[in-house]
Amino acid sequence: MSTEGLPAGLAGVMNRKIVLRQRPVGLVQPDDVELVSEPLPVPGPGEALVKVGWLGIDASVRTWLSKGEGYLPPVGIGEVVRCSGIGRVVASNSERLPVGTLAYSLPGWAEYAVLADDPMLTTPLPDDADPRSMISLYGSVGATAWMGIVDVANVEEGDTVVVSAAAGATGSIACQIAKNLGARVVGICGTDEKCRWLTEDLGLDAAINHRTADLPAALKEACPQRVDVYFDNVGGPILEAVLGRLARGARVALCGAISTYNATERPPGPATYTNLITARARMEGFLSIDIVPRYGEIAMELAAMVAAGKLQHREQVYEGLDAAPTALNAMFTGDNIGKILIRVDPDAT
Amino acid sequence: MSTEGLPAGLAGVMNRKIVLRQRPVGLVQPDDVELVSEPLPVPGPGEALVKVGWLGIDASVRTWLSKGEGYLPPVGIGEVVRCSGIGRVVASNSERLPVGTLAYSLPGWAEYAVLADDPMLTTPLPDDADPRSMISLYGSVGATAWMGIVDVANVEEGDTVVVSAAAGATGSIACQIAKNLGARVVGICGTDEKCRWLTEDLGLDAAINHRTADLPAALKEACPQRVDVYFDNVGGPILEAVLGRLARGARVALCGAISTYNATERPPGPATYTNLITARARMEGFLSIDIVPRYGEIAMELAAMVAAGKLQHREQVYEGLDAAPTALNAMFTGDNIGKILIRVDPDAT
Repeated sequence: MSTEGLPAGLAGVMNRKIVLRQRPVGLVQPDDVELVSEPLPVPGPGEALVKVGWLGIDASVRTWLSKGEGYLPPVGIGEVVRCSGIGRVVASNSERLPVGTLAYSLPGWAEYAVLADDPMLTTPLPDDADPRSMISLYGSVGATAWMGIVDVANVEEGDTVVVSAAAGATGSIACQIAKNLGARVVGICGTDEKCRWLTEDLGLDAAINHRTADLPAALKEACPQRVDVYFDNVGGPILEAVLGRLARGARVALCGAISTYNATERPPGPATYTNLITARARMEGFLSIDIVPRYGEIAMELAAMVAAGKLQHREQVYEGLDAAPTALNAMFTGDNIGKILIRVDPDAT
Repeated sequence: MSTEGLPAGLAGVMNRKIVLRQRPVGLVQPDDVELVSEPLPVPGPGEALVKVGWLGIDASVRTWLSKGEGYLPPVGIGEVVRCSGIGRVVASNSERLPVGTLAYSLPGWAEYAVLADDPMLTTPLPDDADPRSMISLYGSVGATAWMGIVDVANVEEGDTVVVSAAAGATGSIACQIAKNLGARVVGICGTDEKCRWLTEDLGLDAAINHRTADLPAALKEACPQRVDVYFDNVGGPILEAVLGRLARGARVALCGAISTYNATERPPGPATYTNLITARARMEGFLSIDIVPRYGEIAMELAAMVAAGKLQHREQVYEGLDAAPTALNAMFTGDNIGKILIRVDPDAT
């Protein structure tokens, strides 16, 4: 370490990071965030400094920018935007995270970040791990899909399973896990291109473009035996329509409500929730942060499906930290297929 | 049997019944139903004719008058209004329901009714059964309360349990079952008189008058540890407020949505349903018709609580069949405490 507490090779290196200036109303606007340069932060006792290679965008990032109660506190004004990602340790005071370690954590929108050695937040990865797959499949994405389909919804062979945001990162994995369990799977998404990807490439039984379809009629046609399981990423009118088509004993796994995250006023809930009574159905919320200790075991299951050619994952890569706000907004404009990644370090592979 | 298929003592007796003329909009209006007189119906093979003693009003009666999908089909125009009740068999072609049997069934708004010998719909009662208690506690009322509190919500000692329509028939029993399980119980109702009954007579820990209270603030005060279990009879703004106060791992047992049954347009659902995600909570609908075979066993549990002085039930009696529409509307205007009964036969006790 240099006298400043950093290795000599990092002398004079600046960190670029994006901080929150004001809480966005709707999509993130240029004035809502600010890119700042600062000297590299120095890791304290037990901490490590990583050079960020990749960031993974998910809808939670947007919720953390709003005031209000969530499962993590909102990002404060002036703080770096919270975001998961993978980096390599370049300076360390942590025995668990020595220099050179690849680490999955919440570095935020930054080129360098100090990570606390908290096993619930920071996971060291094998040296030969593929960071892109770790973010787009084997980390929280796959664990979330697994938790919803297997743990919460108990999908069984022959079930009719509907997934919204089905061409998104979590949705597309959820669809395929359900297919592997022997379910009839119907994906809901927002473009015909996505519909084709779902049915032709991923092998779903049907796909519905909610922007062009009469949703109740399309659900009736695609789900003649009604809906046993709904994996919901979106809330709003799609949730309302699917609740209107529940089979007796249905399970609704609530993963997210992306249709509401940019809303300036809290939108109404699904009027059809009373069908939960008629159908003797349940609707249950879940968060994959509750099963972080099981990520490894779930990754093994998913890797076996990949090896058998029964699970695909897809990524959409944005280049450079500056693209982060654009990448986040793409979650909400429906432009993405698969996981949205940001290559922060141009040399990262 | 007489030549007309009825015992001689019933010769010339007329039946009075109330049939649906048009589907009500909001509360039931005089023109929506019609009282008609007709010769006594003659039971066919396997059927029995009962003289109705008591009818029990519950909110389902109103839902059956509307068009739309429910767990039973809507009452047709010209058909007798469906309603549960107890009568004594006066003519029979059923071995299971001989003349003199007291029978719990769905006789409808009528002085006499033909019952099919369907064990899912018609239950013969012991000769010494108290018809009032059978309707207000030991039949579907107690079974519904038990199913919601015990089977669906799994109430445990120390849980904070909130019940809406807490001074109603099902709500008041649900509150007391939860108290007997060692929970902290908070009732929501619509008058100060009901609040006093709940806290002073039934021993609830707190009661909230939703017509005068700031509901979110009152819930915060009455449930400092948040809400582990919510037994919902009402839907609407009360459901929305309670979902805003859920504890982690909360269970919401959906019993009914009485606030919506008179609505002319389907009201929006609870905007706060997204808290199910943050709280990792579940909301589940149930219908006690699914556990009819367990009514007897549940009645034994409830009877033990009554014998121990730990369960009270209360009734509000309307006299005569003609009072039925008024009695039904009282469900929705909030005038009732406990179970609403109609004494159809003036000699019934």
